[in-house]
Amino acid sequence: MPDVLPVDSVGLVEPNVAHFNQSLLLECGKTLPGYELIYETYGTLNAARNNAILICHALSSDHHAAGYHSATDKKPGWWESCIGPGKPIDTNKFFVVCNNNIGGCKGSTGPTSTNPETNQPYGPDFPIVTVKDWVNTQAKLADQLNIDCWQAVIGGSLGGMQAMQWSIDHPERLKHCFIIAAAPHLSAQNIAFNEVARRAIITDPDFHHGHYYKHNTEPSRGLMLARMLGHITYLSDDAMLAKFGRELKESHYKFSYDAEFEVESYLRYQGEKFVGQFDANTYLLMTRALDYFDPAQHYNNDLSAALSMTKAHFHIISFTSDWRFAPARSREIAKALLDNNRDVSYAEITANQGHDAFLMDIPHYMDVFHANMRQLTLANKANVTT
Amino acid sequence: MPDVLPVDSVGLVEPNVAHFNQSLLLECGKTLPGYELIYETYGTLNAARNNAILICHALSSDHHAAGYHSATDKKPGWWESCIGPGKPIDTNKFFVVCNNNIGGCKGSTGPTSTNPETNQPYGPDFPIVTVKDWVNTQAKLADQLNIDCWQAVIGGSLGGMQAMQWSIDHPERLKHCFIIAAAPHLSAQNIAFNEVARRAIITDPDFHHGHYYKHNTEPSRGLMLARMLGHITYLSDDAMLAKFGRELKESHYKFSYDAEFEVESYLRYQGEKFVGQFDANTYLLMTRALDYFDPAQHYNNDLSAALSMTKAHFHIISFTSDWRFAPARSREIAKALLDNNRDVSYAEITANQGHDAFLMDIPHYMDVFHANMRQLTLANKANVTT
Repeated sequence: MPDVLPVDSVGLVEPNVAHFNQSLLLECGKTLPGYELIYETYGTLNAARNNAILICHALSSDHHAAGYHSATDKKPGWWESCIGPGKPIDTNKFFVVCNNNIGGCKGSTGPTSTNPETNQPYGPDFPIVTVKDWVNTQAKLADQLNIDCWQAVIGGSLGGMQAMQWSIDHPERLKHCFIIAAAPHLSAQNIAFNEVARRAIITDPDFHHGHYYKHNTEPSRGLMLARMLGHITYLSDDAMLAKFGRELKESHYKFSYDAEFEVESYLRYQGEKFVGQFDANTYLLMTRALDYFDPAQHYNNDLSAALSMTKAHFHIISFTSDWRFAPARSREIAKALLDNNRDVSYAEITANQGHDAFLMDIPHYMDVFHANMRQLTLANKANVTT
Repeated sequence: MPDVLPVDSVGLVEPNVAHFNQSLLLECGKTLPGYELIYETYGTLNAARNNAILICHALSSDHHAAGYHSATDKKPGWWESCIGPGKPIDTNKFFVVCNNNIGGCKGSTGPTSTNPETNQPYGPDFPIVTVKDWVNTQAKLADQLNIDCWQAVIGGSLGGMQAMQWSIDHPERLKHCFIIAAAPHLSAQNIAFNEVARRAIITDPDFHHGHYYKHNTEPSRGLMLARMLGHITYLSDDAMLAKFGRELKESHYKFSYDAEFEVESYLRYQGEKFVGQFDANTYLLMTRALDYFDPAQHYNNDLSAALSMTKAHFHIISFTSDWRFAPARSREIAKALLDNNRDVSYAEITANQGHDAFLMDIPHYMDVFHANMRQLTLANKANVTT
């Protein structure tokens, strides 16, 4: 934590754990016999219980979206740029909830949790979960928190897909839906990157068919490669050029396979840092959930039909240099909503940071986010006066 | 080989091997004590010895650019689309030479060759070679073939970089220079992909610091991953959409990590096929040669200055959907040549096949290639009459 707590941070936060004893039928057909969700909240739930916002996390993030866990924390939560007093998701006005999804490895029930049937970690026996399953568990968390209707469900990337699924599965339970840097489904190229990442993990001799916990090891090489590859897709070519160019660590070529270019050092650092912080079985699950997300699938591949029962006000945001989920993918969503005469705003932010831009404090993005969020405030006030 | 030999194929071909007993000083400062180059030729060298064309190969290809090696060959050489009687590189008119580069694994001296100092395979002790080293050895091959001046040096991708280096290092020894689907140097993103591929190979437990031959094994997992990743960069997102979309092998999700989407099967097939066909140490060398290629480096990063001594007629071709070496990278080369008032033609081919387009029989590409090659024929005739 910085020496002086920033005034626009939610400050010190602690996670909560919600227990669910009822079994959960998953989209894959399997059943989870009870589960836990770890979550954090920021701000205060009002008496009308109508100022709650759900934040959905992306591939490798978790419930810790804002603030600090301890005085020694070097970094705040993953969306500190957008959540806090006076920030777009203003904790002076809203009660913000963010949970780690099932299948995760940061405290919610997942592959590293104990399987009650075996008293061993689930490992590869943890069922493959989907975006729809996550939304289902998030709805049960809302029930437990006595939140009938979210003022907004907000997410970027895989989180945006969850927000979209909320608007389809629970149209009455959210007023606003923010889908940021997302896509209505993965392209073949997106799936291809996920597949290489998964093969890196699965073919690592330390993977042991997913039972690596038993062997007191982990597929660290595979997970490192998966993360390195991920980072290439999170940054734009422009962002890489701006960040690294062809800069050498030393002034001349060493004619070796050591990290010579700055970009090599960066990727190795990111890859190695990830190992020990993230579970490989969870990484597999999360990438598969991405692959499978495709709400139009059950509507004859007609996205407009898939979105026809939605009721939320939609806020779609994309970033010009995002090549993982390019602006055209966001426009597909906006178009399908307009086909249904839904209330939609769409903003394409000029930014060279690539897919990662959605996490960053980019002035134009913050302005757009603030402007969109002001619509919630008004709706909220209207609710209070009526 | 097809039952009926295509009339526009060079037909059955055999490789030759050129021996070089003189030691070779490499750019890295190390010396290779003699070496061999395997090469093929198509067409007939004329009496004036001025109708010779050098073809430079890319990352994973070799000296077998056209024709068939045997009646049981299923596939012809890698550039059959462009080389043959009546094709853009017309073997009725030209004498075409293509060699496997040093560091390769298809017959020229490389990591799998015997190190005369140890009587063991070089393995990781084979020095890291560069595009400049390859051009140097190709020039020595030209000497041995008594070819003073190439009518053209032609290459795509890494082959295009060799053609460019020829124009810089031996301006008097080529009339025409074809730089197809190439770049004046790799971007940070290009290097990043190479780095992930190399880490996949080097961290494979079967790599044994490059001495895997001794252990009678090879880093097959790493090489497979490297190849899978390579294929993502060779295809455009559009090409993947056209080729695979989100097509499932079966009609429904299996909720597993088996190959479910067609693109997964394709990548696994490509990755697995590559293992056993290509040497991992060579793959490392080739990717490093790509990283290091940067002729402007010695000219204060001024590409125009790097190209100031060139004399060839330049033919630059790019493909709209190539995101590995995008058209903008080719335009950088064309611009630097124009800065020097060089004779340059530049064609940007509308094609959705991505980087791989340079290998394909695409009508507009073939038309452009033919048109450019007609300039050689004329020059050649002019030579004959003068």
